[in-house]
Amino acid sequence: MKFCSECGSANLVLRKTNHDTHSRYTCADCEKIFYHNPKVIAGCIVEHENKYLMCQRAIKPRTGTWTLPAGFMECGETVEQAAQREVWEETGAQIEIIAPYSIFSVPQINEVYIMFRAKLEAFTDEPGPETLAAELLSAEQIPWDNIFYPAIKDILQRYIAEKEQGTFGMYMGCSDEGIVHFMQ
Amino acid sequence: MKFCSECGSANLVLRKTNHDTHSRYTCADCEKIFYHNPKVIAGCIVEHENKYLMCQRAIKPRTGTWTLPAGFMECGETVEQAAQREVWEETGAQIEIIAPYSIFSVPQINEVYIMFRAKLEAFTDEPGPETLAAELLSAEQIPWDNIFYPAIKDILQRYIAEKEQGTFGMYMGCSDEGIVHFMQ
Repeated sequence: MKFCSECGSANLVLRKTNHDTHSRYTCADCEKIFYHNPKVIAGCIVEHENKYLMCQRAIKPRTGTWTLPAGFMECGETVEQAAQREVWEETGAQIEIIAPYSIFSVPQINEVYIMFRAKLEAFTDEPGPETLAAELLSAEQIPWDNIFYPAIKDILQRYIAEKEQGTFGMYMGCSDEGIVHFMQ
Repeated sequence: MKFCSECGSANLVLRKTNHDTHSRYTCADCEKIFYHNPKVIAGCIVEHENKYLMCQRAIKPRTGTWTLPAGFMECGETVEQAAQREVWEETGAQIEIIAPYSIFSVPQINEVYIMFRAKLEAFTDEPGPETLAAELLSAEQIPWDNIFYPAIKDILQRYIAEKEQGTFGMYMGCSDEGIVHFMQ
């Protein structure tokens, strides 16, 4: 941030104003304060006939790796709507959300992943341009050594283990620590 | 937004770029794209000896109404850390988080409330400047007709009812629709 987006001034300072607990970029001319906050990424584990809906990334970073459909929540939508839209955009699938499955903070990059369990309703479209391929893969077919991000591998492994045990949980935490809360 | 915060140009346009699904403010000079996304508000229901930790707002809007301690998640922290910090800032209490209790989207104002159940560890400080008073209130003492926001009243009423039933749930939804998922 180099210029004030309200008045165009280059006179920006990092300043803690009034009772605020954090320093913010503040325009020394018009006094506008700029807040930067973490973003929500919403997505789903979509299970269908013992297979899991995964997509192969067409975009950087790590093009060609596999992941679960997920992406940035947009203004004007709920977390659930964001997850459904992202699944549709990245795989062409319509889904029904069952329950939240993970709230995973990544404070290093200011993101919060909210992931749901979901079931497949129908494939109604082609995957969008961010996806090379979208496929339903069995546990044996999942390319475990070629998954985008360690937390995605973890959540899939937990899902498959919990499914065998017959009770799904919900993870709350980050990569360092967290708790699985089990649902009824 | 009137000026590009990267190059200072006033030549901003609302434009849908490449494969994006949404129009964004984009600088027609330096091509910088500006994304605006929903913000996370983290907070807690803190129960202690059948009383609930509430705070009276010292700030607008609706100064003087009562609410649960909660506020904007900041960069560099997890959702749980944000909730703990907000409780401490607004009430002076140290708490331990038990479990998530509500993920409540407010798409009208681009916010997602993530609320936890928590227990009181200690009061170690005075409430901060955003709070007129912080008090532990029994169900009978809660000023039900003077609560900041309808969803705060709803979540407190649900908590008290579930406590009597002996099983806590987790709400996932918005003001129009949602589901309570019960925990084991």
